[in-house]
Amino acid sequence: MAGTVSFVGLGAMGFAMAKRLVEQQIRVVGFDINPAAVERLSASGGHGAASAAAAANEADVLILLVVNAEQAEQVLFHDGALEALGAGKTVVLMATCAPARVAQIAARVEAAGRRFVDAPVSGGVPGIEAGTLTIMAAAAQEVFDDVKPLLAEIGSNLYHMGTTPGQGSAMKTVNQLLAGVHIAVAAEGLALAERAGIDPALALEILGGSAASSWMLKNRGPRMVADSDDVLSAVDIFVKDLSLVLEMGKSEKMGLPLSAAAHQLFISASGMGLGKADDSQVIATYRKSKA
Amino acid sequence: MAGTVSFVGLGAMGFAMAKRLVEQQIRVVGFDINPAAVERLSASGGHGAASAAAAANEADVLILLVVNAEQAEQVLFHDGALEALGAGKTVVLMATCAPARVAQIAARVEAAGRRFVDAPVSGGVPGIEAGTLTIMAAAAQEVFDDVKPLLAEIGSNLYHMGTTPGQGSAMKTVNQLLAGVHIAVAAEGLALAERAGIDPALALEILGGSAASSWMLKNRGPRMVADSDDVLSAVDIFVKDLSLVLEMGKSEKMGLPLSAAAHQLFISASGMGLGKADDSQVIATYRKSKA
Repeated sequence: MAGTVSFVGLGAMGFAMAKRLVEQQIRVVGFDINPAAVERLSASGGHGAASAAAAANEADVLILLVVNAEQAEQVLFHDGALEALGAGKTVVLMATCAPARVAQIAARVEAAGRRFVDAPVSGGVPGIEAGTLTIMAAAAQEVFDDVKPLLAEIGSNLYHMGTTPGQGSAMKTVNQLLAGVHIAVAAEGLALAERAGIDPALALEILGGSAASSWMLKNRGPRMVADSDDVLSAVDIFVKDLSLVLEMGKSEKMGLPLSAAAHQLFISASGMGLGKADDSQVIATYRKSKA
Repeated sequence: MAGTVSFVGLGAMGFAMAKRLVEQQIRVVGFDINPAAVERLSASGGHGAASAAAAANEADVLILLVVNAEQAEQVLFHDGALEALGAGKTVVLMATCAPARVAQIAARVEAAGRRFVDAPVSGGVPGIEAGTLTIMAAAAQEVFDDVKPLLAEIGSNLYHMGTTPGQGSAMKTVNQLLAGVHIAVAAEGLALAERAGIDPALALEILGGSAASSWMLKNRGPRMVADSDDVLSAVDIFVKDLSLVLEMGKSEKMGLPLSAAAHQLFISASGMGLGKADDSQVIATYRKSKA
């Protein structure tokens, strides 16, 4: 197991992972641009660092749980984290990024004599807390073997997708493709049922018990038919994630018509002022205007 | 319970239903344009009829399990079945048809002094044999109450969607909307994983255990990644059913961009010569040409 694990990015997921490792008696160092997040880690048995470079300097494994590829590049290449990380040590990138972009970052990290693991995750904070997080990792076999015990502490559903960084992100991107389209089509179906005068709660019950069911229909459907104000994941997350899906499709020269159509619906919902609303509210794009 | 139940349409589903009722000691009469189907019913304890009108003449309840609305209209209005059916007796239409078309057929049947139940089904022959078929019925309350014991013999998941014929077909159409788009998006996701060099069987395992899962992904996915020649339901069925979805959307003045995109994919697959292939083979529209 790694000596010291450093985190850059201590948001909800980064903090939950760091806390989990602290509880396993692993030495954890962390940095976030939000000082309160660093203090929260210190108060939970971790060690706050003054900068990304300071966190990297102490790390055997440097885990990046930033928001996107731009932030990962900023931390590694502009804020000095890559240079501060010891030669031969390992960067683990867990943010959701376009696969081709991850491959570029990996090449630059490896050219500098450090090792790289592409390791996006699925399952969110509940998955981390329950230990059931899905981790889709891609790295050379010996690099994967070295970080495997650490990653297994973070998530029990650990998959080695391939030896080329970017393949983990490719799997995560395919996951988001299906998740995003399933939300949008649940909205399309339930809105059509509503328009036809069918009780939407009854429609949801029937669909959820038939070959028309999906995980997203059962999870988001109740918040579509009840007009809930709860926000579990925002519309703008799928504006971003379906952009990554389409970027990957373009890289692979593959047309993705369903993803493209669903993306337009999330963009429309965001343009209606629903960007920060729960992603189930993409159903608003199908409803009659109240005006 | 009804005295005599007559079937017009003794294909796989019609025969399975008729056989189920015969086993419940109900008197069953049946007609099909295929004489072998009529003989099969006679050999199973039912009574063959020489024409649709002859079957209708003996019926307390006339169940139509024809392929589409055109055939239902042919049987009722041109082949004499409506006229042959006794005054006050009931027509139950179980074919998958556009809701607006069902409403027109119902109006014509009721104007002739017969009763009408819109009752499409979901679950296929396995659902009939297991007694778990889903029936989405719409009819005036007293008409529904009268046929309820009979329909409950056919399928245990019996729903009264509303009192206006067409509402059952609307629910079935929404079911097909989700089913069709889920098959197409499973193909879009698995083909993208394949193209990115991910083992598609591993991708399917991960997706099936995540928030990206759907009933169709789990059911059709294995036949997508294994290039199976098994045909459980053909591409051309969704060319037809997504046409009904879009016809309903147009009637309701509702744009259905995901359904429209999925429909184009099934049409493309059919145009590639795959119309009679399993609907999972819509994935061929995403793959590189072998030429």
